[in-house]
Amino acid sequence: MRHGYAIHMYTANKSMDNCAFCNADGDFLIVPQQGRLFITTECGRLNVSPGDVAIIPQGFRFNVNLPDGPSRGYVAEVFGTHFQLPDLGPIGANGLASPRDFLAPTAWFEDKSYPGYTIVQKFGGELFTAIQDFSPFNVVAWHGNYVPYKYDLSKFCPYNTVLYDHSDPSINTVLTAPTDKPGVALLDFVIFPPRWLVAEHTFRPPYYHRNCMSEFMGLIHGNYEAKVDGFLPGGASLHNCMTPHGPDTKSYESTIARGNNVGPHKIIDTMAFMFESSLIPRISQSALESPFLDHDYYQCWIGLRSHFTVPELKTIKTKE
Amino acid sequence: MRHGYAIHMYTANKSMDNCAFCNADGDFLIVPQQGRLFITTECGRLNVSPGDVAIIPQGFRFNVNLPDGPSRGYVAEVFGTHFQLPDLGPIGANGLASPRDFLAPTAWFEDKSYPGYTIVQKFGGELFTAIQDFSPFNVVAWHGNYVPYKYDLSKFCPYNTVLYDHSDPSINTVLTAPTDKPGVALLDFVIFPPRWLVAEHTFRPPYYHRNCMSEFMGLIHGNYEAKVDGFLPGGASLHNCMTPHGPDTKSYESTIARGNNVGPHKIIDTMAFMFESSLIPRISQSALESPFLDHDYYQCWIGLRSHFTVPELKTIKTKE
Amino acid sequence: MRHGYAIHMYTANKSMDNCAFCNADGDFLIVPQQGRLFITTECGRLNVSPGDVAIIPQGFRFNVNLPDGPSRGYVAEVFGTHFQLPDLGPIGANGLASPRDFLAPTAWFEDKSYPGYTIVQKFGGELFTAIQDFSPFNVVAWHGNYVPYKYDLSKFCPYNTVLYDHSDPSINTVLTAPTDKPGVALLDFVIFPPRWLVAEHTFRPPYYHRNCMSEFMGLIHGNYEAKVDGFLPGGASLHNCMTPHGPDTKSYESTIARGNNVGPHKIIDTMAFMFESSLIPRISQSALESPFLDHDYYQCWIGLRSHFTVPELKTIKTKE
Amino acid sequence: MRHGYAIHMYTANKSMDNCAFCNADGDFLIVPQQGRLFITTECGRLNVSPGDVAIIPQGFRFNVNLPDGPSRGYVAEVFGTHFQLPDLGPIGANGLASPRDFLAPTAWFEDKSYPGYTIVQKFGGELFTAIQDFSPFNVVAWHGNYVPYKYDLSKFCPYNTVLYDHSDPSINTVLTAPTDKPGVALLDFVIFPPRWLVAEHTFRPPYYHRNCMSEFMGLIHGNYEAKVDGFLPGGASLHNCMTPHGPDTKSYESTIARGNNVGPHKIIDTMAFMFESSLIPRISQSALESPFLDHDYYQCWIGLRSHFTVPELKTIKTKE
Amino acid sequence: MRHGYAIHMYTANKSMDNCAFCNADGDFLIVPQQGRLFITTECGRLNVSPGDVAIIPQGFRFNVNLPDGPSRGYVAEVFGTHFQLPDLGPIGANGLASPRDFLAPTAWFEDKSYPGYTIVQKFGGELFTAIQDFSPFNVVAWHGNYVPYKYDLSKFCPYNTVLYDHSDPSINTVLTAPTDKPGVALLDFVIFPPRWLVAEHTFRPPYYHRNCMSEFMGLIHGNYEAKVDGFLPGGASLHNCMTPHGPDTKSYESTIARGNNVGPHKIIDTMAFMFESSLIPRISQSALESPFLDHDYYQCWIGLRSHFTVPELKTIKTKE
Amino acid sequence: MRHGYAIHMYTANKSMDNCAFCNADGDFLIVPQQGRLFITTECGRLNVSPGDVAIIPQGFRFNVNLPDGPSRGYVAEVFGTHFQLPDLGPIGANGLASPRDFLAPTAWFEDKSYPGYTIVQKFGGELFTAIQDFSPFNVVAWHGNYVPYKYDLSKFCPYNTVLYDHSDPSINTVLTAPTDKPGVALLDFVIFPPRWLVAEHTFRPPYYHRNCMSEFMGLIHGNYEAKVDGFLPGGASLHNCMTPHGPDTKSYESTIARGNNVGPHKIIDTMAFMFESSLIPRISQSALESPFLDHDYYQCWIGLRSHFTVPELKTIKTKE
Repeated sequence: MRHGYAIHMYTANKSMDNCAFCNADGDFLIVPQQGRLFITTECGRLNVSPGDVAIIPQGFRFNVNLPDGPSRGYVAEVFGTHFQLPDLGPIGANGLASPRDFLAPTAWFEDKSYPGYTIVQKFGGELFTAIQDFSPFNVVAWHGNYVPYKYDLSKFCPYNTVLYDHSDPSINTVLTAPTDKPGVALLDFVIFPPRWLVAEHTFRPPYYHRNCMSEFMGLIHGNYEAKVDGFLPGGASLHNCMTPHGPDTKSYESTIARGNNVGPHKIIDTMAFMFESSLIPRISQSALESPFLDHDYYQCWIGLRSHFTVPELKTIKTKE
Repeated sequence: MRHGYAIHMYTANKSMDNCAFCNADGDFLIVPQQGRLFITTECGRLNVSPGDVAIIPQGFRFNVNLPDGPSRGYVAEVFGTHFQLPDLGPIGANGLASPRDFLAPTAWFEDKSYPGYTIVQKFGGELFTAIQDFSPFNVVAWHGNYVPYKYDLSKFCPYNTVLYDHSDPSINTVLTAPTDKPGVALLDFVIFPPRWLVAEHTFRPPYYHRNCMSEFMGLIHGNYEAKVDGFLPGGASLHNCMTPHGPDTKSYESTIARGNNVGPHKIIDTMAFMFESSLIPRISQSALESPFLDHDYYQCWIGLRSHFTVPELKTIKTKE
Repeated sequence: MRHGYAIHMYTANKSMDNCAFCNADGDFLIVPQQGRLFITTECGRLNVSPGDVAIIPQGFRFNVNLPDGPSRGYVAEVFGTHFQLPDLGPIGANGLASPRDFLAPTAWFEDKSYPGYTIVQKFGGELFTAIQDFSPFNVVAWHGNYVPYKYDLSKFCPYNTVLYDHSDPSINTVLTAPTDKPGVALLDFVIFPPRWLVAEHTFRPPYYHRNCMSEFMGLIHGNYEAKVDGFLPGGASLHNCMTPHGPDTKSYESTIARGNNVGPHKIIDTMAFMFESSLIPRISQSALESPFLDHDYYQCWIGLRSHFTVPELKTIKTKE
Repeated sequence: MRHGYAIHMYTANKSMDNCAFCNADGDFLIVPQQGRLFITTECGRLNVSPGDVAIIPQGFRFNVNLPDGPSRGYVAEVFGTHFQLPDLGPIGANGLASPRDFLAPTAWFEDKSYPGYTIVQKFGGELFTAIQDFSPFNVVAWHGNYVPYKYDLSKFCPYNTVLYDHSDPSINTVLTAPTDKPGVALLDFVIFPPRWLVAEHTFRPPYYHRNCMSEFMGLIHGNYEAKVDGFLPGGASLHNCMTPHGPDTKSYESTIARGNNVGPHKIIDTMAFMFESSLIPRISQSALESPFLDHDYYQCWIGLRSHFTVPELKTIKTKE
Repeated sequence: MRHGYAIHMYTANKSMDNCAFCNADGDFLIVPQQGRLFITTECGRLNVSPGDVAIIPQGFRFNVNLPDGPSRGYVAEVFGTHFQLPDLGPIGANGLASPRDFLAPTAWFEDKSYPGYTIVQKFGGELFTAIQDFSPFNVVAWHGNYVPYKYDLSKFCPYNTVLYDHSDPSINTVLTAPTDKPGVALLDFVIFPPRWLVAEHTFRPPYYHRNCMSEFMGLIHGNYEAKVDGFLPGGASLHNCMTPHGPDTKSYESTIARGNNVGPHKIIDTMAFMFESSLIPRISQSALESPFLDHDYYQCWIGLRSHFTVPELKTIKTKE
Repeated sequence: MRHGYAIHMYTANKSMDNCAFCNADGDFLIVPQQGRLFITTECGRLNVSPGDVAIIPQGFRFNVNLPDGPSRGYVAEVFGTHFQLPDLGPIGANGLASPRDFLAPTAWFEDKSYPGYTIVQKFGGELFTAIQDFSPFNVVAWHGNYVPYKYDLSKFCPYNTVLYDHSDPSINTVLTAPTDKPGVALLDFVIFPPRWLVAEHTFRPPYYHRNCMSEFMGLIHGNYEAKVDGFLPGGASLHNCMTPHGPDTKSYESTIARGNNVGPHKIIDTMAFMFESSLIPRISQSALESPFLDHDYYQCWIGLRSHFTVPELKTIKTKE
């Protein structure tokens, strides 16, 4: 499968019954926002709560049970590569997501007859089914490192500036599905977790920008600092490649009003995330026609005004 | 020249007169701790104050003038490679030392006769002299990027954990002279600048450790957080490869007394630095016999005692 | 041309007359299964028998003569890369295919008029023709290493386990058309030649598996060890990405019956091969509608049954 | 520490008492040939029998107890790099040493007073001591992958030719301490384990050669196939860079007498090994003066004679 | 955006008024052939004359003014990568295009209201518009190296053979948009500038060839040496992948008539260029239907005849 | 053997009789300046004339016969690496030394008794001897690419600027023994062959410079353009790392007198060469005490004077 990705938002009302799913095309990164997922895989079972993420690699058969009733959330699918930890560079031995916090299941199997058990296989973008009369979860033992796993986002150890300036969001990369070009991911999974803000002499919220990445954001719980209203848990925004964006008018004006030198401040009770890619996504027809589409999103920036005053010519001249 | 390095501590009482120096063996990284250096090079002139560092690459002729009288400080010399900025990894586009803050001189020359002008050349570890009757600073213009430059350490943008845990000192790398093996430098130049400490549930001072790097530390001004007394500006310590070290007893005990959950704290007025290498340095005879050698350094750790209590067996068992 | 490949099965009834072919899109790897190919190229002539393979790189004009009458076989086409020998790793200086066994032609030319000589060029997936009145095989001499070549598969030096366990088929790679990711080929050409089997305490036939590669198999002569009947020379099977497959029921049951500790055994008179790719192939309409399609292939696995007995709990417990 | 290595042969008569050793210069690979080693490290305890090897990385403190009485064996020390598994290339997912067979210790500690406990530290090629009054094995828990480990050589899965020709010994690489140049190791650890020999039309014993590597061989138990007498368990041979060597006269003549087409043969009860390096070792004075030096080693090749007959000129001519 | 490129020929009759363009898909390399372009970008202004080229990277908003009236020329667009200088290899420190000749603009801004100002954004191959009431050129200052720039082609320092043989056109590479495979560009920008020809014993014009690259040529001024008539400034030719091409009949015959040993000759007043890619371009419908399409181009080669005489067999034999 | 090199100047008066030499430490590159060398190796025989160079890789046994009587010349020895062709970069498929011009010997052997035949082996910098009673040149056939070879320097295809400026000598690299750092060789073998000079507006002779490489020059025949007298065939000069050098006073003044715009000029009858290394060589005692040492070499630069006139301040100002 050539390099690529897909982003889905899911709502699941009932558990999978007498069937399993298998993605022959790529890997799933699942971000439940509401309702636990109890995932049975050929390597064992994973209990995935909102605040956790689960990765089901290409080719694994799995069944999802909903112990809490309906569940909703986000799924990213990557083709032609796998998620990995970013190379930490000067961050060194500690920081961001730690390998030991990614949990693989203990081997579990059932040697059981299931008449009419259905395997649904996603292959080449289409769905195929096969019927068998036994459980696919009959793997007695396994070794290796090609396995499903989960990660609790609250284990993330965020880094950031501790004096001045504003960090690139890449500092919050949990996992990356790389391309061959360093720094240009097929898909980065980035979070905005609770953390201390201490930067001085700066504009602390995410700055206004446009860039070569397409940014899909979601919110797991709490608020997102750059959108004081209108961005709710379970919602999503998409800021595409080279489309300018930034804080809404209210966030901006209140930041300006506070001034640039507020002291340390801890952001608590929040967990936003971003799927960020160097490939521009196409929007599906169903998304474009969804009743949940926010046609007024652009209004969050209405009323933005310049706070810049052109300095007098004399001032500029002295710099030459 | 094969890969290698040398670390010097210098005390200069007078300006260089009618002479220039040239290092054919490697590059100098100069860290004045007291007294400005006014350095004339073939590419132009650099005014280097304490708090700045200057790099004079292999083969440049230069003359040092002392506008403030005597100067002292530290010099690292690297052979077979050059200093470069570390690859920032997830830190991304901002953070640590920024390329635009490294300042190269404007071309400057003199077309002048200087009878008896002496060039002192360090070549193969020995000093040679040549006499000429004109200034070596007769380069009218230049282009390229092999040039002397300086950097003001207060421009450094420090990153660190903003929630919990303790960072590896590599996070404070200003410049690195790499080897072929990522993460294992020939010589890293690392600083401990003013910054906010916000980590929770952790022991904030540098932790006790031994590692594969040999660490030479110096102090430019202020105090160093892990040695409450006894480490003075202009001093130096060397903790060699796999030799355990850490905070002195007083720093340790006062940290323990404070507990692990103190709030945000800003370290101000300090500028310590480290030259860190994967090659074990040999100590020169003159250093070993120096009247300034601190024979009692080990005493800073006398009195350290364990605060650990072995948990009852029952507690351990429940983890199985 | 972006990276890609195509696999063809050919039947040729007569020699190419007064014409030459040229593939502007990619390289051909030709595997005749029946009937020799006498290939004239701009660099000289290759006599290719069943058991040999020939590679005609992108852009070479060539003519094929059938000295034995009709010929049939397999052709792989790779786009955007070329075939190369695999990096042998610990296998070292000897083993698998040796560079000296790949034979390039001696320069040969004709200075001759051929009225109406037609060049058929495959370009961008379409065929174009040009008429000229002279032979294209008018290259008097050449040098370089971009040339057609052939290889006799019986020169292959197979490696495998010589004690226990079961090897990955990559151990039998003759040529690989790589991608940028080590271990994930655009197209591997792998053979299953005569060889000794000596592994103890193991299931010797190819094991049941599904994986990220799509596997197209063919048979040049003899039998294939995992399909006791039904896989004939000139035939082909396709096991696509993440579709489970393995020995047919008869092969499996007879292996089980023999037990795991049979002694050395030499497989003779066989030459199966595999084109294996990390990109999922689309099947052409003509293949799907072919009268030769084996609609009952799946039946080779009917009747497979488990030989596994769940061990008693006590046994498992002693491992903790 | 620059790249380098050392090879030692040890004889230990008693356990280490109230002391621990630490190598600040490099890593130890320990190959006991006789007598178990019970090694206590800061990460836990390793029980190392003849047939196992243990690796103690740079900087770990450890104590060795001899539960069986005296022990002897071999130790390799590598500087500036670490041992790693070789990249398997076409061998793929299985074969040679498997990561899961390298065993790290479970955390173990003692919170105990030991008056006069001595740490012996090897630093810069010299030994230093420090006295403390507590056990250094007070590490309560650990995580990471920089740890001592052991490997049972009987788990090795040997690969080799299964048809004809003779393999390069690199096919038996257990661990390699690489240089920057692929295929040219600082130190390879290679074994010659029990295995099937099936090659046809070839000279099966190690062939006569000279090469760019220096080869130190030892024998753990059994016989070594190329030296029918005179190479005993616990012994060692050194064939230096570009010094020709090969089977002794008896092995050679008996191979010739058997002819080239003997059938499958299983070598059992043997475990020879090789430390192989691209750097020429200097021999220590004590080794050169050892009463165990075999001054007559060269005699094993006395009496070798040519079995080659120059073919008549006519035969050669036909190849042109 | 996946790797790709597009080539456009433009004719502009009037300046852009109250609007700006932004390419979210890739970078523009603009080659004006007639009429200056005065380009205003967010980073400042570039004055681009015929003989200069300008690069506007992905995402920059810009406005083009035509100070000389109508302008025409060529534009290449690259997706998924950026143009860079080729690695010079043995050419070393000097030669071809020098980094210091690529000129970035000085920051320039306007703080001005423009009712109805339109931003036209190319995104995913389609055009979108947005209306705003202020100038987008309100960037007061900038730093970094992601900027628009221009280059004067007459600064190019051409290299070539100075004794015999004929150079590959890659020797004239100004800028390259690389793929991951060295030597196989996504798009090379190559020029044929004024230069000395001194090669002896050779056919000096571009030789007849076909190759894996698709070659689009244009002419900025003067004549192109391989087409004595019919290739005019502002024109273009496309020789696609593996399509043979070379000098027209007149150029060829006059070269043959001159013989192989003419002395030094300086080509003056010429500036042809080539966009060369390893990906085959599709031709747009509008180009195929253009009234400017030269349907008789192939006629430039009509009348080519062989000057080769088959040597007698005896001569060939002596080489064996 | 660690990376390193040695440079020797040899004078041989008689052929090697009943003996062979073998260098276990590294490879020889032999540059005869006077008198042919007839070299017999285990792979066959090489006839090496002045104007040719021969490479004898590490570990080959060879015998040298002098068919013309005494021979003299230069030998470079490289340790830890081998010579290879430079990566040509934009030079592309043609230019500099072509692989097909490096000639390996045809297999040749003798099956002959030679009582008292002596092998002299250089090992670890010392010489060892072994006596045998047969010719070592008993290798009947060979394959592979680790072989002795020779190259005729007149086949070199020199490249250079064909418009303006002055090339780096790296453009004339025949072979390079690389380090891990691109552009910084362990030893480059560079020649200054006959070629056309056409550069305009420039100072054509080698410019005055000092750099990080140490340059050993020799002359095979003719004159060297930068030393009008005093540099004779068979002589040598050494300009060490960061020691300034350039044309002698006469060459300089006559160039100045000619002016900068002389037309094309062909340098004929010359063959100078350079061994250039990034490692500073130590000079042997015998070289320092040689009666052939030129104690007055420095005098070639006596009398150099500046031709520069400081422009008036006004002129400089207008550039700002």
